Amino acid sequence: MAKSANTPHVVIIGAGFAGLYAARRLEKRGARVTLLDQRNHHLFQPLLYQVAMAGLSAVDIAQPVRRIFRRQRKVEVLMATVVNIDAGGRKVELEDGRRLSYDSLIVATGATHSYFGNDQWARHAPGLKTLEDALEIRRKVLLAFERAEAETDPEKRRAWLTFAVIGAGPTGCELAGALAELSRHTLFKDFHHFDAREAKVLLLEGRERVLPPYPEDLSAKAQEQLETLGVEVRTNSLVTELDDQGITLKTGERIPTHTVIWAAGVAASPLGAKLAQSAAEVTGRPLQGDPPRSEGSDFVTALPVLDRAGRVRVEEDLTLPGFPEIFVVGDLMAFEQAGGEVPGVAPAAIQSGVYAANVILQRAAGKPTEPFRYRDKGSMATLGRKSAVATLGKLRLSGITAWLTWLGVHIVFLIGFRNRIVVIFEWARAYFTYQRSARLILHEPSPYSESSDTPESEPPLDP
Amino acid sequence: MAKSANTPHVVIIGAGFAGLYAARRLEKRGARVTLLDQRNHHLFQPLLYQVAMAGLSAVDIAQPVRRIFRRQRKVEVLMATVVNIDAGGRKVELEDGRRLSYDSLIVATGATHSYFGNDQWARHAPGLKTLEDALEIRRKVLLAFERAEAETDPEKRRAWLTFAVIGAGPTGCELAGALAELSRHTLFKDFHHFDAREAKVLLLEGRERVLPPYPEDLSAKAQEQLETLGVEVRTNSLVTELDDQGITLKTGERIPTHTVIWAAGVAASPLGAKLAQSAAEVTGRPLQGDPPRSEGSDFVTALPVLDRAGRVRVEEDLTLPGFPEIFVVGDLMAFEQAGGEVPGVAPAAIQSGVYAANVILQRAAGKPTEPFRYRDKGSMATLGRKSAVATLGKLRLSGITAWLTWLGVHIVFLIGFRNRIVVIFEWARAYFTYQRSARLILHEPSPYSESSDTPESEPPLDP
Repeated sequence: MAKSANTPHVVIIGAGFAGLYAARRLEKRGARVTLLDQRNHHLFQPLLYQVAMAGLSAVDIAQPVRRIFRRQRKVEVLMATVVNIDAGGRKVELEDGRRLSYDSLIVATGATHSYFGNDQWARHAPGLKTLEDALEIRRKVLLAFERAEAETDPEKRRAWLTFAVIGAGPTGCELAGALAELSRHTLFKDFHHFDAREAKVLLLEGRERVLPPYPEDLSAKAQEQLETLGVEVRTNSLVTELDDQGITLKTGERIPTHTVIWAAGVAASPLGAKLAQSAAEVTGRPLQGDPPRSEGSDFVTALPVLDRAGRVRVEEDLTLPGFPEIFVVGDLMAFEQAGGEVPGVAPAAIQSGVYAANVILQRAAGKPTEPFRYRDKGSMATLGRKSAVATLGKLRLSGITAWLTWLGVHIVFLIGFRNRIVVIFEWARAYFTYQRSARLILHEPSPYSESSDTPESEPPLDP
Repeated sequence: MAKSANTPHVVIIGAGFAGLYAARRLEKRGARVTLLDQRNHHLFQPLLYQVAMAGLSAVDIAQPVRRIFRRQRKVEVLMATVVNIDAGGRKVELEDGRRLSYDSLIVATGATHSYFGNDQWARHAPGLKTLEDALEIRRKVLLAFERAEAETDPEKRRAWLTFAVIGAGPTGCELAGALAELSRHTLFKDFHHFDAREAKVLLLEGRERVLPPYPEDLSAKAQEQLETLGVEVRTNSLVTELDDQGITLKTGERIPTHTVIWAAGVAASPLGAKLAQSAAEVTGRPLQGDPPRSEGSDFVTALPVLDRAGRVRVEEDLTLPGFPEIFVVGDLMAFEQAGGEVPGVAPAAIQSGVYAANVILQRAAGKPTEPFRYRDKGSMATLGRKSAVATLGKLRLSGITAWLTWLGVHIVFLIGFRNRIVVIFEWARAYFTYQRSARLILHEPSPYSESSDTPESEPPLDP
């Protein structure tokens, strides 16, 4: 494929909100873009919990990236895993050994779960970041009800009917609320040996209230609404042990359960550390940690490249200090504004992606650029049918008003016409019938895929 | 749960067409039913190839069994794997060690793939029986196009763009037609480094024509329609070797490809052999094979319990010889009628399931029963947009007439209101736009599920 030499080539890693919006903006202005992602789809993450709770199906909230850009010939979409970034040599290295050169690079690989050093918990308490995660959680939850039906010992059945969500941020609250609705309204008539309304949904939070980043009055309202839905909210509850038979709290209390969902910790994508390593080799900066205490040192170069969560500290124009051609955006960037951190939410990802694209375009046109400013348009968390909390500028909403706002905003931002229609249809149907369409338990891919499941073990490109 | 002592208890194994229709009929007449299935869903298998080809999504063609019977309190649905049948003791044994007693048993566990003794081919050439199979095939096909986009060597790209379907029965023809449409219409604009219309779809058949069970003129028409769609049909082509780099034909020809789909052989479900073993222990009949040559011997008791395909030979009332309380129905039964075998198709499964239910009810009421008669209402195979062949009684249809008939029949029989609406919507949309909604490549369930994927490795019921 011939490429014109004068158009700058922008490589974008990650097709989440930040990467996707950056690619769109660049493409519209004629830049040449290569968009890399490990998966073939863009995911509308705010609705992922609905896939986990069998309300929506995977296709409703995901779109093949290739399809989104099918008419944009200047965007080359490549399903590929980036294993390293050579910041000095301006190249990204792919898993298959190939190296791509860039004029500008936008790193938007987002975040993953953090188990705070207890990585062995991961297999018992899946988190919710990818479609596969959502399908795994769905499988665990639906299977637990099936197990309860087959169990005759009341105590063991009780354990199968106990569901624990760890972490009461927006995702944890959404999951707990949806789980309570699932058992109380959707499944309650479906079993012969128990009433699904007996199911216990625990929401455990280490801090003193749910939705810690929200204003206190909204936290209180959220807790009230969750309790009305049937969730048992337990704040100040730290988990110290977790295995396939249950969880142990710091108080020593043991809760028998086989279904635990992790919604407590977020860690930056591991590619951030690779980038930091490569950058540190060139600049000599420390790798990771808190700022040094001495006041006099030059702010940026004395700072470690990564903050404690593994996110990449960026300049005012979202570039990596010392590398004006490398932008870090979305959940992977650490950016402070007016004394607070820009949060890891979809609007911040979109704004930072579009901003990075604009800076690249402005520079190419010889125009001046302005520092990044995050505009907080508010945040919201839905808890269940007609239950939600939201802040919109100075407005604070809860209950049905917040819920309708949430509904409207999510429908408007869903990418893809088909998704919108089907999601509206599913929601309307779920609203009136309490039924959910996606109640399928999928087992493992068939036995023959034993060793050909992951792309790594696919027939090699070089046999 | 209290069970009235006078109502007979019918255990049904398998919630496919045969088991589901049997349960429905029994329940309507007040019988007490326990319906067992390994999965939690009933699958509308005739549309499974559309899930494999990204046209429909899993939820569109599957319904939780529990939900189908949610208002029928006399049907107890249990997601469980039956590991053995004690024909003498009238019990079925579940994987978790429990044993269920029955007054009547209906075995409807269907069929699986057969690789004709080459089981090692299974991992390179998945077949199409379950939702997991369909998702695995979809993943392989979509991933092959992504690999082709990343490949620079033209010969290697050619191999990624070669797709082989082995077996030209209805499923093989449907898959090949849908694959050709996928590459020629849906994907053709989506890649930068090749034209997806270059993709080669091979349909390999060992016998001398496609759709061998159909009348010859329809086979010829089907081949013609497939070729118009872009399929390369090769009859009299036996596969002798198959690995992750390609297939070898009996002629010695080697075809490099990484994407092979198996649609050639069907074998009875392994539970048939367990049942045969248990029955043979009581009756002393031979286990499996062809009928003995001597003409004089008593027809039924001298026959081996299983035929060569592993299906269970049944009496005129679909019961196992010597066990009037055990019915074998659907694809697992071997039943001859007017010199021919009853085929393994959905209408035969439905008719045999309903028939077995009726016999149980008639016996309970002291009424006489009649032998099973399969009513062949015709058969059809769809090949692509406006392409299909069908026999309806003496009528033979092909092209758009057959296609519209196919469409109508499949919509009418799809179970569940939501499915019907969505499937019609998807088809209408695909028809007008050539787009397919389910183009998602799902990786393996997340790393933490490594050892908790299969139900066997779930937290044990008895810790």
